[in-house]
Amino acid sequence: MKQLFYNGVIVTGENQVVIPDGFMVVEDGVIEVVGTQDQLDQFSSIPNKVNLKGNWLIPGLINTHGHIGSTLLRGYGDDLPLATWLETKMWPMEAKFTDETINAAASLAILEMLKSGTTTFLEMYHLHLDLIANLVDTSGIRSCLTRGMIGLCSKTEQESKLAEALQLSRDLRKIGQGRITTMLAPHAPYTCPPEFLEMIVHEAKKQHLPIHTHLSETAKEVSEHFTKYGKRPVEHLAEIGVFDVHTLIAHGVHLTDEELDILEKYQVAVSHNPMSNLKLGSGIAPVGKMLKKQILVSIGTDSAASNNNLDMFQEMRMAALIHKGSSEDPTVVSANEAFLMATYNGAKALGFDSLGLVEVGYAADFVIVNAEKPHLQPNSHVLSHLVYSASGADVVEVYVNGKCLVRDGQCLTMDEEQIIFYANKAFKKLYS
Amino acid sequence: MKQLFYNGVIVTGENQVVIPDGFMVVEDGVIEVVGTQDQLDQFSSIPNKVNLKGNWLIPGLINTHGHIGSTLLRGYGDDLPLATWLETKMWPMEAKFTDETINAAASLAILEMLKSGTTTFLEMYHLHLDLIANLVDTSGIRSCLTRGMIGLCSKTEQESKLAEALQLSRDLRKIGQGRITTMLAPHAPYTCPPEFLEMIVHEAKKQHLPIHTHLSETAKEVSEHFTKYGKRPVEHLAEIGVFDVHTLIAHGVHLTDEELDILEKYQVAVSHNPMSNLKLGSGIAPVGKMLKKQILVSIGTDSAASNNNLDMFQEMRMAALIHKGSSEDPTVVSANEAFLMATYNGAKALGFDSLGLVEVGYAADFVIVNAEKPHLQPNSHVLSHLVYSASGADVVEVYVNGKCLVRDGQCLTMDEEQIIFYANKAFKKLYS
Repeated sequence: MKQLFYNGVIVTGENQVVIPDGFMVVEDGVIEVVGTQDQLDQFSSIPNKVNLKGNWLIPGLINTHGHIGSTLLRGYGDDLPLATWLETKMWPMEAKFTDETINAAASLAILEMLKSGTTTFLEMYHLHLDLIANLVDTSGIRSCLTRGMIGLCSKTEQESKLAEALQLSRDLRKIGQGRITTMLAPHAPYTCPPEFLEMIVHEAKKQHLPIHTHLSETAKEVSEHFTKYGKRPVEHLAEIGVFDVHTLIAHGVHLTDEELDILEKYQVAVSHNPMSNLKLGSGIAPVGKMLKKQILVSIGTDSAASNNNLDMFQEMRMAALIHKGSSEDPTVVSANEAFLMATYNGAKALGFDSLGLVEVGYAADFVIVNAEKPHLQPNSHVLSHLVYSASGADVVEVYVNGKCLVRDGQCLTMDEEQIIFYANKAFKKLYS
Repeated sequence: MKQLFYNGVIVTGENQVVIPDGFMVVEDGVIEVVGTQDQLDQFSSIPNKVNLKGNWLIPGLINTHGHIGSTLLRGYGDDLPLATWLETKMWPMEAKFTDETINAAASLAILEMLKSGTTTFLEMYHLHLDLIANLVDTSGIRSCLTRGMIGLCSKTEQESKLAEALQLSRDLRKIGQGRITTMLAPHAPYTCPPEFLEMIVHEAKKQHLPIHTHLSETAKEVSEHFTKYGKRPVEHLAEIGVFDVHTLIAHGVHLTDEELDILEKYQVAVSHNPMSNLKLGSGIAPVGKMLKKQILVSIGTDSAASNNNLDMFQEMRMAALIHKGSSEDPTVVSANEAFLMATYNGAKALGFDSLGLVEVGYAADFVIVNAEKPHLQPNSHVLSHLVYSASGADVVEVYVNGKCLVRDGQCLTMDEEQIIFYANKAFKKLYS
């Protein structure tokens, strides 16, 4: 089915191109034409027309790191030292998680993400990924699902976790009509001994699977790593061969210039999680330096337990602001760079082809932003407003693969009232 | 007229008190009763009832530093070095401002602030404060208006500016039925020579007017100040006697421990503007240290030209996050501290009595937040969600002095469509 979207401002996502009087034709989930209003006549016979009414059509936002299975822990522990937070708040609750918890949490998160303009998300989780995949399937969102593996266990258990991850990788990719991809996800260097990482790299190469891992989130973990191995984590992973596979690291807060050189050399992609890094007191990642080195930086929210929302507009804004302030240089991370991080760079980081731009041949994953909000006026500076002033609440419509998932701010594929009811019910059960 | 607000969650603003099943009675613009549902029977005869439907009733947010006259420059220059931004973007445009510009800009800003839950704002501006006062009057918002004075001119001109500020102070306070207060506002130590500051302090004491000024926003201004005067700005102002008057400083980014001691000694209030300080690359204010010293810290957005929105929820969130990250300590600036900064501390910083709390005897300036949003679930952690997850878009109703100004997200006292139309029209005229 061909669809024509006309009378809108189109932000293609590349090189700050903003078409003030744009239109777009979509067929079979793919963008077929992007043009200006004066070329519109030749497409007037398309029966399915959507009048954008001057609103802004942008690529869907791509969240490259999170744990949506933990969404019910949003706000359950704030302002605590990291160890206290993990030991007294997160872990005791996570130990009680059931399939009901995960289902309620993941439904809530996908609903929140879709409504706020996220069309693709990466999930690292260790439980019930099959449930999450089913929700991806029915909600219509796109996802990269990774089974987080902690290797602080016997070799047999390590092998069993890896086998499970590989089997899941095969099974999950069959769900969601091609909208689900997978990666192998060793949790972190401090939870995965070298031998386990080697096993994972071996399988990743064999199965052509990328790798996703937490890396150098806190100063403490890096210092402990150095004490244990006599080298810093990036050097360690490079030596083990992790970076011989396409790798996406989450956080990357505590990195030396030498480590940045290694990431650049191996073209390792980064998921920058500024809100979570701030909230947990982890620090501020050297994103200005990463960009200078042409390291691929994308953006992730991390879990709602440490963010505490999944609004990629707010995350993008933070990514654009924080490095200016911390380096006292207002030219660091431009609006365009932040926008690319949240869209095209995210697609590349996750290994998706033809995703993250509003360009001919790209997947029709896009978002329509209400241009009539007071905080988006004067409406001449579209890219600036998208990065520095907009929020997920400005999203009116969301499409994935050309299918409308959110219309007039309401999710068409999920029952919001029911999801909120079950989220609270499941949390109360955990809490009691 | 008595009004009863029942069946809500009431966040009083003091000591993290959240009443899960609360009600409130308002009469003549003042909060008369705050209680729990079990005491409700005795108030059932009040005819004007508002069912809060489980939503969250919180004190109105108080924005303690801004320049709403410049709102039309939102997004007009980003990611530029400060001098370039000022010299090529801000100043040439500001030179073209007319009463039409200011009217359009201030209308847009007040609309944005009201819709996002701000009930009181401080304005420092040098032009057409009478127009802004009239908009405060008709919109129903509360405001502290200050005529920003730059003293880089002859003594005669300095005297004339001060006389104008004093006359405005008298005139503006007559507008807005008691909702407008004033301060004297020397722009900054680097734009106001000592003799001019002395003149201002003299009049401030005589007229019992507080003082508002920019202070130590950038490293450059502080270093130049030291070169010129042989002392740092805070010491300089203390010696001139500025702090003998109740003073609210904006920014306070570059302060030594000795300067913080002086601010503490004189009980100087601070308007913390984290977003603007980040965006302009000014740096990160030592708010953790300020709080340890019991310095009164409030929150301001600064102008939309350097923020780029006026959403106090997002500003409060930033104030809670940034200091955790920059100090790598997640216990710095708790949710409750950030919430107080954006409410009660703001009222105290502006010198308002009985404002900023939902408590008996306080002004009925309050906001109702929609508790049914996905990103505010599970809904048990109200204060956490208000600070770490909510945004201005979650506001459904806003009251000032007991009068409803926003209902169902729509401003009752301002014509949104018209304001947006004139904002764009006025900007196009400036730009051409």
